[in-house]
Amino acid sequence: MQLLKERILKDGTIKPGNILKVDSFLNHQMDIDLINEIGKEFKARFSDCPITKILTIEASGIGIACIVAQYFHVPVVFAKKAQSLNLDGEMYRTKVQSYTHKKVYDVILSKKFLTSDDHVLLIDDFLANGCALQGLIEIVRESGATLEGAGIVIEKGFQEGGQRIREMGIRLESLAIIDSMSDNSLTFRD
Amino acid sequence: MQLLKERILKDGTIKPGNILKVDSFLNHQMDIDLINEIGKEFKARFSDCPITKILTIEASGIGIACIVAQYFHVPVVFAKKAQSLNLDGEMYRTKVQSYTHKKVYDVILSKKFLTSDDHVLLIDDFLANGCALQGLIEIVRESGATLEGAGIVIEKGFQEGGQRIREMGIRLESLAIIDSMSDNSLTFRD
Repeated sequence: MQLLKERILKDGTIKPGNILKVDSFLNHQMDIDLINEIGKEFKARFSDCPITKILTIEASGIGIACIVAQYFHVPVVFAKKAQSLNLDGEMYRTKVQSYTHKKVYDVILSKKFLTSDDHVLLIDDFLANGCALQGLIEIVRESGATLEGAGIVIEKGFQEGGQRIREMGIRLESLAIIDSMSDNSLTFRD
Repeated sequence: MQLLKERILKDGTIKPGNILKVDSFLNHQMDIDLINEIGKEFKARFSDCPITKILTIEASGIGIACIVAQYFHVPVVFAKKAQSLNLDGEMYRTKVQSYTHKKVYDVILSKKFLTSDDHVLLIDDFLANGCALQGLIEIVRESGATLEGAGIVIEKGFQEGGQRIREMGIRLESLAIIDSMSDNSLTFRD
């Protein structure tokens, strides 16, 4: 997605440890006009899929998923990262290792909101080692829902997550795939 | 907001400890059509304010804020609840006590994304004791931005947060104010 790549080049910054910061437009401050264009792009790429629900994980996926969902006219459901007093009833549960926060956390989703009748599109802002996305995939499998695919805004193509998920036979659409990053430059996959 | 009150009565459930669960449409599964109506309502109520930025707090405020922001044509910025490796530079910091999670957590916001030029609308899903909202208000004050007001989807009017914030002279618009809750019923403020 050209508009996104241009924005990453213009406003993204690269930090030590292969960290790409896009916090001025994607995951701290959010440029809603850009995210609407992202929503249109995901709709175009998954227009052949009978999506009934968009699934994401807190926190930074939620806003993007909500904007994207407008183009599919379906609800969003987001997996939560810790037990909350306000959650009860039966839960899907899995564990996810966070690359950013260097810890393992529990991820839960109420069984009420994902069933075998659903056709699910996963949405998230980043894909690196793929742990968060694999957690969501496990939840979808446990629910018996049909996984139509995953839409990622930025994939770090030099980490193994994307390849591993494609090898599982899952349709993965990343709007910008970064093949290499150094101190002052990055290269997108064509 | 009549549509919202009807939805709370239809799909909300009341749990011990004065917990109102609206997780089927507002903060676990999210009904994007309803949240768009919420966005229109906030725009109508704050149409006289020169809003430049919408500020919320992760996690459940983010999706609502993003949908609402479309009606104001401004960016969203969300305060984060813990230190992340991907945040650097100067931060606004405050502490917030969570009623739901029974703990105190640090809340941070990059100084880049809120300045004295901004006119801020705070958005959140719930207002009960007001701790989260007061944390956001502190951040706005520290930034020197103009606080135009706060838009809350559901206020628990029988807890003290709303009164305390109104007494601070802050314009607070809650789309549904619950004055009392018992096992099987709830009463809205007119």
